[in-house]
This record gives sequence, structure tokens and C-alpha cells, in this order.
Amino acid sequence: MSRNSIGKNIILTSFGESHGPFVGAVLDGFPSGFTIDINALNADMQRRRPGQSHLTTPRDETDEIQLISGVFEGQTTGTPIAFLIANNDTKPKDYDLLKDTYRPGHADLLYQTKYGLRDHRGGGRSSARITAGWVAAGSLAKQYLNQPTAFQNSQPIKITAWVNQIYLAVCPELDYIPTQAQIDASLVRCPNEQASLKMIELIEAAKQNGDSLGGMICCTIENCPIGLGEPLFGKLQAVIGQYILSINAVKGISFGEGFNVANLKGSENNDSWVLKGDKVGTDTNHSGGIIGGMATGEPINFQVVFKPTSTIAKAQTTLNAQLQETTLMAAGRHDPCVLPRAVPIVEAMTNLAIMDLLLEM
Amino acid sequence: MSRNSIGKNIILTSFGESHGPFVGAVLDGFPSGFTIDINALNADMQRRRPGQSHLTTPRDETDEIQLISGVFEGQTTGTPIAFLIANNDTKPKDYDLLKDTYRPGHADLLYQTKYGLRDHRGGGRSSARITAGWVAAGSLAKQYLNQPTAFQNSQPIKITAWVNQIYLAVCPELDYIPTQAQIDASLVRCPNEQASLKMIELIEAAKQNGDSLGGMICCTIENCPIGLGEPLFGKLQAVIGQYILSINAVKGISFGEGFNVANLKGSENNDSWVLKGDKVGTDTNHSGGIIGGMATGEPINFQVVFKPTSTIAKAQTTLNAQLQETTLMAAGRHDPCVLPRAVPIVEAMTNLAIMDLLLEM
Amino acid sequence: MSRNSIGKNIILTSFGESHGPFVGAVLDGFPSGFTIDINALNADMQRRRPGQSHLTTPRDETDEIQLISGVFEGQTTGTPIAFLIANNDTKPKDYDLLKDTYRPGHADLLYQTKYGLRDHRGGGRSSARITAGWVAAGSLAKQYLNQPTAFQNSQPIKITAWVNQIYLAVCPELDYIPTQAQIDASLVRCPNEQASLKMIELIEAAKQNGDSLGGMICCTIENCPIGLGEPLFGKLQAVIGQYILSINAVKGISFGEGFNVANLKGSENNDSWVLKGDKVGTDTNHSGGIIGGMATGEPINFQVVFKPTSTIAKAQTTLNAQLQETTLMAAGRHDPCVLPRAVPIVEAMTNLAIMDLLLEM
Amino acid sequence: MSRNSIGKNIILTSFGESHGPFVGAVLDGFPSGFTIDINALNADMQRRRPGQSHLTTPRDETDEIQLISGVFEGQTTGTPIAFLIANNDTKPKDYDLLKDTYRPGHADLLYQTKYGLRDHRGGGRSSARITAGWVAAGSLAKQYLNQPTAFQNSQPIKITAWVNQIYLAVCPELDYIPTQAQIDASLVRCPNEQASLKMIELIEAAKQNGDSLGGMICCTIENCPIGLGEPLFGKLQAVIGQYILSINAVKGISFGEGFNVANLKGSENNDSWVLKGDKVGTDTNHSGGIIGGMATGEPINFQVVFKPTSTIAKAQTTLNAQLQETTLMAAGRHDPCVLPRAVPIVEAMTNLAIMDLLLEM
Repeated sequence: MSRNSIGKNIILTSFGESHGPFVGAVLDGFPSGFTIDINALNADMQRRRPGQSHLTTPRDETDEIQLISGVFEGQTTGTPIAFLIANNDTKPKDYDLLKDTYRPGHADLLYQTKYGLRDHRGGGRSSARITAGWVAAGSLAKQYLNQPTAFQNSQPIKITAWVNQIYLAVCPELDYIPTQAQIDASLVRCPNEQASLKMIELIEAAKQNGDSLGGMICCTIENCPIGLGEPLFGKLQAVIGQYILSINAVKGISFGEGFNVANLKGSENNDSWVLKGDKVGTDTNHSGGIIGGMATGEPINFQVVFKPTSTIAKAQTTLNAQLQETTLMAAGRHDPCVLPRAVPIVEAMTNLAIMDLLLEM
Repeated sequence: MSRNSIGKNIILTSFGESHGPFVGAVLDGFPSGFTIDINALNADMQRRRPGQSHLTTPRDETDEIQLISGVFEGQTTGTPIAFLIANNDTKPKDYDLLKDTYRPGHADLLYQTKYGLRDHRGGGRSSARITAGWVAAGSLAKQYLNQPTAFQNSQPIKITAWVNQIYLAVCPELDYIPTQAQIDASLVRCPNEQASLKMIELIEAAKQNGDSLGGMICCTIENCPIGLGEPLFGKLQAVIGQYILSINAVKGISFGEGFNVANLKGSENNDSWVLKGDKVGTDTNHSGGIIGGMATGEPINFQVVFKPTSTIAKAQTTLNAQLQETTLMAAGRHDPCVLPRAVPIVEAMTNLAIMDLLLEM
Repeated sequence: MSRNSIGKNIILTSFGESHGPFVGAVLDGFPSGFTIDINALNADMQRRRPGQSHLTTPRDETDEIQLISGVFEGQTTGTPIAFLIANNDTKPKDYDLLKDTYRPGHADLLYQTKYGLRDHRGGGRSSARITAGWVAAGSLAKQYLNQPTAFQNSQPIKITAWVNQIYLAVCPELDYIPTQAQIDASLVRCPNEQASLKMIELIEAAKQNGDSLGGMICCTIENCPIGLGEPLFGKLQAVIGQYILSINAVKGISFGEGFNVANLKGSENNDSWVLKGDKVGTDTNHSGGIIGGMATGEPINFQVVFKPTSTIAKAQTTLNAQLQETTLMAAGRHDPCVLPRAVPIVEAMTNLAIMDLLLEM
Repeated sequence: MSRNSIGKNIILTSFGESHGPFVGAVLDGFPSGFTIDINALNADMQRRRPGQSHLTTPRDETDEIQLISGVFEGQTTGTPIAFLIANNDTKPKDYDLLKDTYRPGHADLLYQTKYGLRDHRGGGRSSARITAGWVAAGSLAKQYLNQPTAFQNSQPIKITAWVNQIYLAVCPELDYIPTQAQIDASLVRCPNEQASLKMIELIEAAKQNGDSLGGMICCTIENCPIGLGEPLFGKLQAVIGQYILSINAVKGISFGEGFNVANLKGSENNDSWVLKGDKVGTDTNHSGGIIGGMATGEPINFQVVFKPTSTIAKAQTTLNAQLQETTLMAAGRHDPCVLPRAVPIVEAMTNLAIMDLLLEM
């Protein structure tokens, strides 16, 4: 079996392999009569696109979206929206090596074990390429949430992610929510210039050494309507968690104070309810904007940790298809750090998660 | 709306309020012909029961299970298993104070806002009491997974959780998986004696001060069949995450190296595939037993962080029902630390998550 | 496995066996702040109750509802509503005979085969008794739909079912929609007096002969909002069909012209769109109020056919538990005709189906 | 909203409009390692293809399948299988007339009302063209069920549908299950030669008169494993009903004796359990192979009634986009009878329904 749909009210179904003709997605449940901004959609695709800088995988794709249903004369029709994204730069020969050798830390051995066979050209379904369809779907969700009318009288809901850490380079804590322009001004999507330079340096070194680097992304949701989230099993953190933990390479997620909350007392961690003008809010925001699985109305913030990419160029001991020990040295096309390109993926999944819950309020 | 069912193949539906006649649950999809060990079920209930030690909430409940369907002459019949757990120690007067005052850090204001009304006696649906039904359901899942025949030729799948941190007391890293006996030998369910004593001391102090403490629980899954987990959106970590993040007070989850993975290079973090006898495994286990959303066959381990309980006896500023500022001092029945009683809840939710995926393999 | 939940937005979960302590249900997704009319709920239960006339099964139950969660001070709280209905008149000895003999036309052999065991006392989960929980849930859905504010500016949505045929007695075609008072004035719930008398006569004869009778129920939905129904796989007729075909003994459902539509030309069957005041409607209603899976705004009508109850007192050839041929003569407690008691069940399932779709509009 | 996925274990997601570049589908949950017979898939597509005889719609399509994921070197990989079918013969001008006029009996007015806009070129999502993706998916399900190993020791499960009635021409009752060759020997897919000739005659006359004809299809499932179907809400008839009632133009479904069961007594309708060799079966099959929502092991048979196509060439009164009365005379491309082409659609949906339940046993 497999499960390739996510969502209850706005449902993303993902399909395609990294080396088939297309990857794609179907987005079902999108309200009708919404005018889609194709330029904004394409711009979001560019943020995820491989080959966008010298720091990413050398695979080169334009990642142009083909919208094949659900939109008529620029407007959504209420019927399922289907996307195709062509795979142009597929050089299966690059992967001949991997046909009979299982990469350490990679899912190919597990796909082979679970399904009895696999498409060994690239990662198949475990490739980061699959997220192209997610980003397209997330971009539409973002456009929907960004309108002031997404929820009664609400301000536009705005989701912003940035790179907070790459290996040993950490962004100092921010006392503001950065804009996308500030984030994208950096090749590594970190709004702090010094941290950014350090990160670039680390990635360049890793690339040269055939190695890869882990890191962390921070994400903020502004103007989430108070009460968003469905007790008991559609809690806001559980739904966000389900979407974010579906991203390859994510190894953890935490909200508000995160793992530091273990070190706190109730009297330190509780956020007091206060009136802010005519709206209820909290004086502090240790909870990260979520209490009891519902939005407090304060900015939601969470942290996502990424492992370093498993495909590296360094020599590693592993097993081959005959389950004999062998040494692997994956050539050429390795991606030293996925974090910068993961920013739009985190945003896309968060936009989809929030829209799914919003349609249920 | 609300969403009170979780699972695809073995579905838990939760119902009941903390101060109604019963809390309960329905467990649908449990295979037929399984002999239930009622004593084991009751023993699991005792581990979650309030009032089990002087360190927990003073609410006193026997938490006896009434099995009202799905079991005939000791065996499951394949039909839905329904449980009731009576609420005996309900003293609504204790909560009169809370009728008109919203607790800082607590969901009661949000329930009131979202639904327009709420059962103000205790936490209603946000009460930890609701987890009694989860633990009952999880106990059956555990019994199912513990049998050697749960999955073809597999060893019994065994899920073990323990308290790793309470406030500033941290359990030293273990180089073994503790037994339940070792864990339950400690009042705070921490297998290290010294840490345990320190934790008890901290809780006693917090209780006296009317305060509460955060902490961390570690959980391990042994003998998870290789390949468990359903790409793309039923990834093992995403499903576990969805269940665990449904527990009130959980603010984060991480797998294997956890948030430390941000500090690692691929060459440091990759686990090499090796043969162990006739089974595939990995030489190290940085991944925590999960790669590409599927079990590697190695022990799965993850970390769960809990915030301190929001209901404390200390004076706090907050809003009343008229949205005026007020001071709250919740009397008597506060729970200084939920971590020890949360251990069986983490185990229950993990057992349910794993059984759900196992039934799909 | 088994599947005991139905619905996407308002979800009914059913549990309980005919001879356990209770049957019951959980209804999740019901909007908060709705004032429940307990008397109306109990009145609906009385319409389904066994033993309500000399024409039904002699099992005698009061079928009082215990509401154990989701309602506080008379109002729904938005949390799951759970019901219990006690099984009082359980005389397992009556069923000793059936422990080792499989009834012709009955599911007990199939439960035994599928699950490897069964609760042989009464029908277990296949008993009509299970529908007590459905009728309770359906009654709440009915109360919800009956309010003028169920959907923007809509009139109360009203669902009415009646017995149209019992064996050879057929109700003449009605040119009006009967009221519940008109229907309940008849012991067999047929609004035509002569047909009604004939039906009663046929049932009395069947009872005396130890036999049972099939029949048909008609159902009408008034004031269904135009456009209700979700293309492609939540079509109005498919959703109603799924709910109605879940009722034991139902062997078919048809809409509008029903099976007669096979004999029609497009020019005869098409309903022309016309303006009726300021609302769109159709001049004729061959379609039964549904086109393309959506409501046209005209009254929806459909027909449901029921097989005669399988448990009869006449001698029948069958197999015993050892799979040897035997003769069965089920004593005493047979129900000669379920149709009159099935009327509230058809209404309940239709109310739930319509409410499920309405919450999605 | 809209709901464009169906199934729990093998999930069909449908997308595409009749006049977009493609229609298509994603089939998720198909077991891995299954060798697909592409020729058989294309042959099934040809049976549904428009323009296959002079009796159908004149739209001419090759309906070639593009398999874009989930199959590698001829075998399923366990990942979602996605299909595209190009729309070649799209002459939007043919539909200019329909831009501003709502067809009687057609869903275009309802799409416009529900969604506020629609793709007026052809039927959009309500077009029969959408079923091309269903037939492709159903063909794979059929190949899966046809293998002897689909279920433990079972014979190949074989689903056969044929036209039983077109308008006043009725096929005499068959005392055998016809082969596909026998069915396809007839242009109208009726295995009786005389009825077939009469049907052809009626369709030719209807075509000439610009009219359309209703009819009935019979369907049989052979070798369904005993016990297939999931109580209570995955009953075999409810699941088949949900799939079949999703087909445009279907107005009713009945099982076994169908609506005639209203005229029967229990003693006439009950099927006695008997041993047939070493297998349990029934002496008669009034139940149509389904009791208590589960398969009895006997052949399952059901009847499906279709309304005549709503788009006809005769003059009809209707409303235009300004809701003024007008007269419509839809030119040229009308389909006088969908029944022959609906045979593979009924089979496809039944194959998918049965496979969905089979994967749960």
C-alpha cells in the first residue's frame, strides 16, 4: 500500500517519479471563483527549483507548471486542480551506479525491501523532486490565505519560513518577522547577513569535500484566526506536524519555546490572557501561538530540523543488491545542503495545513 | 466541527467530558479472535490513574474499564470495541471559580471562543482525563503488538517510554533500553535512581509552591518490521508525530539524533547498511530507526517534550468572562508534573500508531 | 477489519451488540450551541422501538437514551455526542437454538466465517437493534435540518418516509407529501387507509404462519438547497445510497422515476428549467430532484425496497455448525414485517446523509 | 468543495475537464510487483471510447493511455499510478450555443449555481468523458482481480456486465453468465441476438429523431470470496452502490431479486445454506450473493438503471443565463444511448469497489 493524499478539506494527492516524464499533483476542494496569480505561482516554483544557485544540486529544471484542470479563464472552478511539471534533466546514466548499491542513510534499500522493486533512477518517489507538486499546491493555498477575506474579518494569513541554522552557523534570535525580500536577499535564505555568509562558506566547503550539512528552519504564521485547530485529533500542532514531518529529511518539529520548555516552570511558561485593543491575546508567547491545539491569535512559530542529505560523494561502506559489503562513492550530482530550497517547501506544507483547518471552521 | 477519531486501519474514537458520567472510546478495526488480557489492561490503566502517588493530581479515580462491546467470552469479535470509564471523583464546586475566569496557558478561553460555550467543570474535553480511553485502547494495541505473530515471523513489537527530564533534573544517557519494571521502580518513571530522586525533590517543591514543571519523555520501539511506514503521507515519523502531538502539553517531537542533527555532516550522520546475521541493519543509528519514512529494522527512538501544566496555584493575571483583567489563584487540585503519568499515554499513542501502520503492510 | 463509522463532516460511529449491556453511537462534528429537544429525541426512539404494536417483534425495550457527552445544560458543545441505549429484554436462552444452527438468509454463518467467532445471542452486530443508535443520531440531525437557519435563507429541510408496499398490498400513488401525523395514524405507517388495513391483515396472517413479508418505503426530502451534493464522488444519490444501503434488509434504491426510467425517452424524462417566482425549478420532476448528483431545489424522492426478515418460524433446511444439513424452526420471537419500524430508520439515515453534505456547502 | 476521490484501500482520484488538454486519474494503493498488460488496458479503453460505432456520440477520440507514474519496466512499483488521456476532438464552437443556455435535465445550471462559474465547453466535469480515467483504473483493478492469487486460494474474480434493456427492448432472462465475447458480438452489448437487433433499431430511430433512450445494465461478480464486505458501513451492497451511483445517468441499483423482493415472503426469499462439495453455498440465490452486507460465495448480481441522456436535438423549453425562458435545440453531437458504452464503466466501478474491499480482508 501507500498513502499519497493528505488533508481532509483541501486534499493534496501527489504522483510521479523523479525520472518519469512528469511529477505532479491534484488539489481537490479548492473553493471556486478564486482568481489565480500565475506569476506568483511560477515565482514560488523558482524558489524551490534545483540549480537556482551554485549551492544546490546541479540538476537543472525550469519547473514550469502545466495547469491541466480546475482553472477556467484564470479562475478556479471548484473542480480538482491538476498540475504537471516535466522532468527534463533526467540523465539516468548518472544513476547506473545506484542500481545495485544502496546508499547509506537513503530510502532506496527500504523501497526495494518494502515493494520488492523500485525505480532506481534517482530517488523515485523519495526524491526531493516530488515536492515540486507540493510547492505548486502550497502556492495556491498561500494565495488563498493571503486574501483578507479568507476568514471572516480576518487579516491576510501570512506564513514565513527562513533558514535559522546550517551546521555550525546559527542565525541570532530575531526580534521581528523577516519579509520574504529580506530572506531571499540571502542565497541561503537566512535574513541575518553575517550568519548567511558563514552558511555559504560552510556549504561551499561541504560541496568541495563531497559532504552535506544539516540545519534548522524557523516558520511563523501571522493572523491565524483565534480558535483554529480541531480538538482532539485535528489539533493545530498535530496537523502542522503531520504535514511537516512528511518532508524528507525532517527529523523533528517543536512549537514556541520548543524543547526548552522542559526547563521551565508553569509560572514561567504560562502566557497571561490580555486584551489588545478589542482582541484577546497573550502578554508573552511561550506557547508559540497554540494552546490546547487551537490558535491563540498570537503569531504561531515553530522550528523544523533537517538532517544532512544522505547522498554524498565521500566513500562510504554499504551493501549492494546481493547484500554484500561494498564501498560507495556517489559521483557528481550531490546536493551539499537542502535547507535553502526547503524554505518554500516548509511554507507550502504549512499553507496547506492551515488552509485545511480554515475550511473547517 | 471537531475531529475525534484517529487512525486509518485501527480507528480510535474518543468521547466524554471530565465531569460527565463517563469518558470513553471506541476502537474499530481490531482483528477478531484475539484473547484479551483484562488484568494487563487494568494494570495499564493504573499507570495512568490520577492519585497513584503523592506527586500527581489529588483527583482520585479507580479508572476501572467497562468493556461494553466487541469482546465475547474473552475474545475480540472483529466488531468495534467500546469502553466506558466512570467519572467518580467529580467535585464541580472545585471549579466554580473557573466558570468565569480563563486560566493562563489553558484552552478554556479558546473552547469558549471557538464553540460559543463550554462545559466549565474541569477541562471538559481538554482534560487529561480524556486520555483514560486512549490508554485503554493503546493497551489492547500493545497486547496485539506484543504477540510474536503480529507480523510475519517478527519478534514481538515492544514500545517503552520513560521520563528523561523533569525541569532541571536530567537522566544520564542510557546505553540500554530499560524494562518497565526498572521504569516503574521509580515514582517518576525515570530508570536512573539519582535522577529520579532529584526529580521527586523538584516535584515536591513545585507542589508546595503551587507551581508545575515541564520535562521530556524518551520512547523506543523494538522489533519494528523493516519497511513499516507508508510513503508519502503515512511516513512513520509523520504518523507517530500526529498521534503524539495530539497529547495535551506536548510541544515537540524529534527522532534519532533529534535537533542535534542540525550540527551534523552527512558523513557523520549517515548510518551504513550492514548485515547482522541474516538481517539487514545499520552500523550506527543516528536516524533513530527511520529512513525515508520507513523503519530500518533498528530500534526506533524519539523524544517528546512536555510543557508544565498550565493550572497552577500561584497568583496569575488573566481575563474573566467579561474580558476584564483579573487575578487567578487556582486552589487545591493542581498537578505539579504530568510527566510520570504521561509515560503510559505516550506508550498508548505509539502502540496505536504502530498498529495502524502494521495492519496496512 | 470492519468499518463502523459513516460520514465526512458529521460522523456516526456505531457500537454495541444486541445482547451486550448497551448499544450506542458517537456523533462527531455536530455544530455547537444547538439546543436539543430531548422529548423529540425520545419520540423518535419510540417510533423505532420494538414491541410498539402487536405487529412487530415481541422484544420489549423502552429504548431510553442516555446522553453521556457533547451536551451541556441542554446545548451541544461541539464535542462528540455519545449515546447509550440499554439492552434490557435480553433472553439469551431464546437463542440457544441458534448457537449451532445457521439461519437461512441470515448473516450469522457469514460472521462466523469472516471473523472465526461471533456473539450468537441474537444477531450481535447484524441485529436491527443496532439501529437504535442510528435513530438517535438521525433525530439530532433532523432537529438541525428542521431549523430555518440550517442553510442560508433556506426553509427547514424536512425528510418524510412512509410504507408504500407490504407484500401484495400497495399504497396508491400519492399526489401530496403526507405528514408524520397522517403516517403514524396507521399502525403500518402507510398514509392510505385501505392499503393500510390490507397491510395489517397480511402481516397478521404472516405472523400466524410464522412467515415474514417484504415491502417498499418511499422517502421525500423537501427544501433541499439547490446544488447540494459534491461532484464527483459525493453525488447526492451516491451519498444517500451509501447510507440507505447500510440498512439491513435493503436490497435496492432508486430515485425519481426509478427503474421506470429505462422505459423513457430523453424528451419524456427531461425536466425543463423554469422560474417559480424568483427561484429556479423544473416543470416536471422525473429526476426526483437530483441532476448531475446535485439537488435541483425540487422535492427529492426515492424508493427503498426491503426483503422479508430472514428469521421465520417455518421449518427450513439449513446447515449446523458442523456443516451438516439440518432443519431449523426458529421459535417465538420472529418479526413478521420490519417495514413499519424501518420508516424512522430510513428517515434517520437520510437526515444524516443530508446533514453531512449540508455541512460541506 | 468537491470530492473527487473514492475508495479506502485502493483510491481513485479523478481530474480533468472534457475540453481541457487531458482528463486523467491517480490510482493509489495498488500493490507492487504486478505486471500490467498494456494491451488489455487499451482494449478496455476501446470499449468505452466515443465513436466506436455509428450508435454513439460522434466525438472521436483514440483514448490512448499515457501512464506517467507508478509503473516501472512493466511492473507496478507500489507508488501512485497516474494516467493521462488527451482530449483531441475538442470543438468548443459546438458548444457556443450552450454558453448561455442551460440544458433541461443537465447539470450545467447546477454547476453554475453551486460554483458561481463553470467551463461551459461540453460538460466540464459532468461529461461522460471523465469516465475514461475510471475505466483505465478499473481495468487495472480487473487485471488484479482476474489473477488466481488475488485472494488466498480463490478463483479469479470475474465481473461481467451487459445491456439488459434499452427503452422497450428487453433481453430475455439469461440462465447463464455471458462471456465478454458473446456480449461484444453485439453492437449494443446485449448477449441476446434478437433483443440486440431490436435495440439497434430503437437507437437508430432515436438518433434520427434527435432523441435519447434509457435502459438497464445487469452485472455479475463470480468467485467473490465468502465474507467480502465490511460491517456495518462497508457493506458489500453499500460500497458497490456508492461506486455505481457515482456514474452519471444512473438512477437506481438493486441486488438479487431487486425490487421484486417486495412481493416475496421470507419462506420464498430465504436461500438455504447447503454444502456444495467442500464449500458452503446456498441452494437458491434470491439474495443476489449478498447477505448481511457480506458475500455468500454465490455469484453476486445486481441491476443498474440509466436515464436517457439529457442532451437531445429536439426543441425543448428551458432557461438561459439571464433566467429567461428560451427554446433550446442542441445540434449535431448528441448521443442517442449511452448504455453500450456504459457497460465497461459499470464493470470498472465494480472492479474498483471489489478490489477496495478485497484489500481489507
